[in-house]
Amino acid sequence: MQQRAKDTRLSVIEGAGRVFAEVGYGNASLTDITKRAGVTKGALYFHFTSKRELALAVIEEQHAIVLAAGSEIAASEAPALDRLMGLCRMFGQQLLDEPVVQGGIRLTFEASAFDADVSGPYQDWINTAEQLLLEAAMDGTVRADVDSAAFARYLVASFTGVQMVSDVLTSREDLMLRIEQMWQFMLPVLRPAATS
Amino acid sequence: MQQRAKDTRLSVIEGAGRVFAEVGYGNASLTDITKRAGVTKGALYFHFTSKRELALAVIEEQHAIVLAAGSEIAASEAPALDRLMGLCRMFGQQLLDEPVVQGGIRLTFEASAFDADVSGPYQDWINTAEQLLLEAAMDGTVRADVDSAAFARYLVASFTGVQMVSDVLTSREDLMLRIEQMWQFMLPVLRPAATS
Repeated sequence: MQQRAKDTRLSVIEGAGRVFAEVGYGNASLTDITKRAGVTKGALYFHFTSKRELALAVIEEQHAIVLAAGSEIAASEAPALDRLMGLCRMFGQQLLDEPVVQGGIRLTFEASAFDADVSGPYQDWINTAEQLLLEAAMDGTVRADVDSAAFARYLVASFTGVQMVSDVLTSREDLMLRIEQMWQFMLPVLRPAATS
Repeated sequence: MQQRAKDTRLSVIEGAGRVFAEVGYGNASLTDITKRAGVTKGALYFHFTSKRELALAVIEEQHAIVLAAGSEIAASEAPALDRLMGLCRMFGQQLLDEPVVQGGIRLTFEASAFDADVSGPYQDWINTAEQLLLEAAMDGTVRADVDSAAFARYLVASFTGVQMVSDVLTSREDLMLRIEQMWQFMLPVLRPAATS
């Protein structure tokens, strides 16, 4: 794709992310999205043939944004458990700052409305968390008898709920505090007895 | 309201719960709901003037069903921490067995689509959990220094995420297992040092 076409496509996705974040899938119109993106309907239809296709692209772009921000943290020199905590904070901050991430997560919760399979992103995060927990068990910051697959699943599920309930009760105002509290309640069960 | 009118209203809510559970708010039609409920359109419109009103009634009925099942557990003679764990299992079982509960929870996640404030049910469960945690701290099964307000919020958020991710990844097939694992990861931080 030429750079100009790529730029237009990204503008459409960003506009769509903002509209989906604000009004959800059912209430979003392609007219609103072209206005928000500053593109013509022709330009939008050149890249996307339906609202559903656009919603899937926003979810994909959201996951790509968070993965890109996460890959730096995941590849850093910090201990694995610190990287895992850093990933959660980063995701929380993206939910506060990035309209495409806000839109993508809202669409993920509404995914059955447009018959989308959103298991992939959840599974990616569960795999990443399990890998980091295994590393942490090797470097001794996590006890060796923790079931890393089960804990990774629990962590991703808890994080999902923490950000959703923070959104419902405080419009995410207390999100970063609730993520820290989540870790306060999780760390004692992970840490080896001597340091807990 | 006369008993017959009450029965009809409940039939409509049950039919609506099934339809919302299966296709979500956006895709549900009042025609499908009347068919599923086995009532006429006239009977439906006698009780509900819009899909939104019906969705709010399903959420309300869902919360009432789970609260009713929960009140027995909450009032039992069992230790407070056991009652709290029992409430989570009961809610999980209702999500597996009760179409109105399935519909109400799906609508709760989609609530922004029809501009509904769903903070009430979350707040009710957070308050119930906090009360039981305070009781458990008094009877010595939970350590006295646990921040019960913060933990109650964390528990409700985690439970919300656990059931949502179980739905996305396994259509709730592993829900009861994931609820047990949640408690395995939570209990060590709650239990007094001597018994952990």
